[in-house]
Amino acid sequence: MDIYIRKASKADMPRVLQLITELAVYEKEPDGVKIKVDILEKEGFGTNPLFTCFVAEVNGVVEGTAIVYDVFSTWRGRVVHLEDLIVTQSMRGKGLGLKLYSKVMQYAHERGIVAVKWIVLDWNKPAIDFYEKSGATFYKDWYIAIMEEEGLAQFIDKG
Amino acid sequence: MDIYIRKASKADMPRVLQLITELAVYEKEPDGVKIKVDILEKEGFGTNPLFTCFVAEVNGVVEGTAIVYDVFSTWRGRVVHLEDLIVTQSMRGKGLGLKLYSKVMQYAHERGIVAVKWIVLDWNKPAIDFYEKSGATFYKDWYIAIMEEEGLAQFIDKG
Repeated sequence: MDIYIRKASKADMPRVLQLITELAVYEKEPDGVKIKVDILEKEGFGTNPLFTCFVAEVNGVVEGTAIVYDVFSTWRGRVVHLEDLIVTQSMRGKGLGLKLYSKVMQYAHERGIVAVKWIVLDWNKPAIDFYEKSGATFYKDWYIAIMEEEGLAQFIDKG
Repeated sequence: MDIYIRKASKADMPRVLQLITELAVYEKEPDGVKIKVDILEKEGFGTNPLFTCFVAEVNGVVEGTAIVYDVFSTWRGRVVHLEDLIVTQSMRGKGLGLKLYSKVMQYAHERGIVAVKWIVLDWNKPAIDFYEKSGATFYKDWYIAIMEEEGLAQFIDKG
């Protein structure tokens, strides 16, 4: 099987959104994805893109994606954050995930960045095992906090 | 007490690094901070800064800081990430934290951004209570994974 990893173009965004939605379903949050294709096109492409997207192609069809962006760690400096690493259900276990993951690590390494970080659901054992084997370290004593749209509006109103 | 919140300048970075280091000690990771002042100056200021820094001044002295940057959520689109919110030990409980936090929420709201996120240590009950009261939601079933410098070099070598 011929797996080809490349940087995504704007034209890939409808398929990338399908993959994002597929992951949300897997993560038991089918209604989590609020964005549309135009947001991916606007934020990922242009003069100052907010993210970089890689795709994995098999026989000319995009079957996986990795979405990354740089963040600033007050401990480590510039770090690559891996937002999503997705392989479509029917193509799992065929090496696409490892190829995308390796591409992300290379992308960081080539740019002189010393760390890559991401989050993983605590029940996603196959992913955790894979990451652990690859050399990643886990930090299990943090919560993620989010001020969502409604909470933010209420907070500002009270201000 | 007169608390003045403003955007940080390059000249504030030595003091901001002191505050970052103070937080690392509080988080029981005194050796966690690997960066120096020049990294803060380089990444936070210039044509395409990686973060925005706010500071809280009391009587002309910087006693707190909030460091933020935009990230891309594949669910929500552009989101403000609050990397650090720090008030120096001797000035806690005097309202600096709330003022900095409010500034971050305003900064997001004014720019039309629909969510602000951050992480908090699971044992930091005072912080968790404060965030909860303010309207934030917690996600407790995620681990943070980091491929650190050494693991990354080994992974690339094996590649």
